[in-house]
Amino acid sequence: MAQKPSIPKGTRDFNAAEVAKRTYIVDTIKSKFEVFGFQPIETPSFENSDTLMGKYGDEGDRLIFKILNSGEYLKKISDDDYALKSEQKLTPRISEKALRYDLTVPFARYVVQHQNEIEFPFKRYQIQPVWRADRPQKGRFREFYQCDADVVGSKSLFQEIEFIQLYDAVFDALNLKGVTIKINNRKVLSGIAEVIGAKDKLIDFTVALDKLDKIGEEKVKAEMLGKGISEEGIAKLQPLFELSGDFGGQIKSLKAILSNSEEGLKGIEELEFINKAITEFKLKSANLELDVTLARGLNYYTGAIFEVSAPEGVKMGSIGGGGRYDDLTGIFGLKDMSGVGISFGLDRIYLVLEELGLFPDTITASTKVLFINFGETEAIACLKAVTKLRESGIKAELYPDKAKMKKQMNYANRRNIPFVVLVGDEELKTESFTLKDMVSGNQNVVSYNELLNKLK
Amino acid sequence: MAQKPSIPKGTRDFNAAEVAKRTYIVDTIKSKFEVFGFQPIETPSFENSDTLMGKYGDEGDRLIFKILNSGEYLKKISDDDYALKSEQKLTPRISEKALRYDLTVPFARYVVQHQNEIEFPFKRYQIQPVWRADRPQKGRFREFYQCDADVVGSKSLFQEIEFIQLYDAVFDALNLKGVTIKINNRKVLSGIAEVIGAKDKLIDFTVALDKLDKIGEEKVKAEMLGKGISEEGIAKLQPLFELSGDFGGQIKSLKAILSNSEEGLKGIEELEFINKAITEFKLKSANLELDVTLARGLNYYTGAIFEVSAPEGVKMGSIGGGGRYDDLTGIFGLKDMSGVGISFGLDRIYLVLEELGLFPDTITASTKVLFINFGETEAIACLKAVTKLRESGIKAELYPDKAKMKKQMNYANRRNIPFVVLVGDEELKTESFTLKDMVSGNQNVVSYNELLNKLK
Repeated sequence: MAQKPSIPKGTRDFNAAEVAKRTYIVDTIKSKFEVFGFQPIETPSFENSDTLMGKYGDEGDRLIFKILNSGEYLKKISDDDYALKSEQKLTPRISEKALRYDLTVPFARYVVQHQNEIEFPFKRYQIQPVWRADRPQKGRFREFYQCDADVVGSKSLFQEIEFIQLYDAVFDALNLKGVTIKINNRKVLSGIAEVIGAKDKLIDFTVALDKLDKIGEEKVKAEMLGKGISEEGIAKLQPLFELSGDFGGQIKSLKAILSNSEEGLKGIEELEFINKAITEFKLKSANLELDVTLARGLNYYTGAIFEVSAPEGVKMGSIGGGGRYDDLTGIFGLKDMSGVGISFGLDRIYLVLEELGLFPDTITASTKVLFINFGETEAIACLKAVTKLRESGIKAELYPDKAKMKKQMNYANRRNIPFVVLVGDEELKTESFTLKDMVSGNQNVVSYNELLNKLK
Repeated sequence: MAQKPSIPKGTRDFNAAEVAKRTYIVDTIKSKFEVFGFQPIETPSFENSDTLMGKYGDEGDRLIFKILNSGEYLKKISDDDYALKSEQKLTPRISEKALRYDLTVPFARYVVQHQNEIEFPFKRYQIQPVWRADRPQKGRFREFYQCDADVVGSKSLFQEIEFIQLYDAVFDALNLKGVTIKINNRKVLSGIAEVIGAKDKLIDFTVALDKLDKIGEEKVKAEMLGKGISEEGIAKLQPLFELSGDFGGQIKSLKAILSNSEEGLKGIEELEFINKAITEFKLKSANLELDVTLARGLNYYTGAIFEVSAPEGVKMGSIGGGGRYDDLTGIFGLKDMSGVGISFGLDRIYLVLEELGLFPDTITASTKVLFINFGETEAIACLKAVTKLRESGIKAELYPDKAKMKKQMNYANRRNIPFVVLVGDEELKTESFTLKDMVSGNQNVVSYNELLNKLK
């Protein structure tokens, strides 16, 4: 291979510093998941194709990575079928497995498959990579991690309350203060659509409403009109565009709009219950905000809808999202299993922490001390000390070769190793160590115990 | 979907207890990797096909999972080519990516691709899943984790010494005492083949020798004879079959056999150097053993060869292995990069720890306390306490629904939650908690502070 090797587009190599930072985020999320009572599960990277296909719409089906069957995979295809030369015909015949596209469908599959071993309500978390054959672009990858927590088997609104607390706990632990947790409710959106006589146009209505921040009131109204929503209906929306005040104030306005919609009022009631509890418990550093325009994954959610945005001033899409879906496992034949869950966007959280300089210095700390190699005898004496330091939990290394002093010091420097130990004739004789502080440049002759204490 | 869903053969779901145990092993390995100065990297799950194909032999090529191209993947294939209906022709045209088959080739690719950002010698570790389209059987899966540590860019034998210490440190930390680290050297095997006049039959010779334990001396000799090794040559092997004594004793016998082979004596010298250092430093609980029949991955290794077996009495194949390969990155055009590395077999280590009952009780501990839900008012009071407990790092849960007492208690029981808290009218009034120990059955009325102390 003459050419320098590369990796597929949309994928990434992670170096040590990047792995350490990603691990820091994942470990923080994990520890909060566990303290909230969520249990980890893992599912295989690939599933049978029929588990995944048809669950994410046509676009999703196209974006699922399919795995080619092994062996003589063309053998069982008739010549006539083969001659059609059609991907649509061929793909299901030559591929029976596909890479996980998200963690939700495999979770639903898991719940149905293992329903007899599971105690419900089942609180699970899952942190694993997923793959999508999306066009790669800034911040969008073909392989990326999802960090999901879900509860299945309970309709209690206490779940929604706990998920808001969980978001708050995680972002606070990451020292990312001031995130906004936006909440909405599918029932409120349905109610509004009902009230303005556009019940059959719920999707069109919410898609347009979702753009309010970006394109403004007039253009939203124009789009709704274009989609066949009546002027009279749109007029009824006016209070929606003028929603203001805090959570409670907005709820009041919404109640007025929705007074004739039973479903809408049910949604309001849920939002009020959640807000009341959160107000009473107080969040550590996040803000809870009602956002009636929030409609993500609408086909899917049936109750609460969540989305988290980075603190003001940071330009970044949502760094988390989720919601309630009343029939999570129905696709696999298990009815009446309400689920609610949230997800953390690892890559975006990483970018936000990087931008705000919030990664603790300690996490990228690599090796603490490098022992310089002056030759076999010295190296053996060094390795003895290195072995003891490691047993005390100190990250220590011996430079493996008797290279030029300058080369070894450069190695320590470039790897940001803060201490270097030199053992020559004199040190061998006196069983001592010359310890050099690479930052200050100071150097001292010390005993092993002094060395250990200094490095601890 | 009428049928209960399933997962592809050779893959596994892991439940919470299994994830916790696997995490325990991985975290132990990781912490030792880091204390020895290894740095983590991660590479993508799939690589460009030309990075992987041809690197593992024909059998390997067949076992690599290939990913189907997206979109109209048949379009650019001419009708004539297509009409051949040949997997061999079609596969490279419809698949340009493949799932990682091991961690070594992606590591070599990584080193070459990032050579300008890397400080050599480069000590990296990598713990990620790999995929093989092997026939699944007991203990062999199509998706499994590899845990590898390698150094590239130094020929120093101190690396081999440190890897033996690393094996010892990991297995000792896992409380798996008495593993045997077997070591051999490719140069010794080459030397023996040279001495018996079978230099061109090195593979046949070592394959036969490798079976000594299983089929015995006579059958091994017969196999060698069958492969065209002369009787005279085989006669010279006699001391090899009678090797006995400790490491030093065996080295002595080998020296006699290899006195005329420069390469063989070089191998002996390396083994002696390593053994001397290990004898001086002492291992914590592992045994180092010379095994001249050890030949794993011979095509690949050029110096030391390692294999670890479980403590006596545990029937299990090797739980780790590795060795030195003098030209790791040559396949990608970067010459003269000697590498040496070891691997830990996660699945087998898991089975051994399970068999010997070595998993600490603490690691599967799930939620510590469940608060029973008697209704909205009580639940809100409970959630307040739950929130505070979680902030103190205690895994606490509120049962989300006002279900029958018995159902909630059963839930705690089946999930092995050791404490349950009940808050009714009386407790609400006095701001107290009834704490029930699920093991002893004892129950006490306590204040929040007493509760916290009890659960800590």
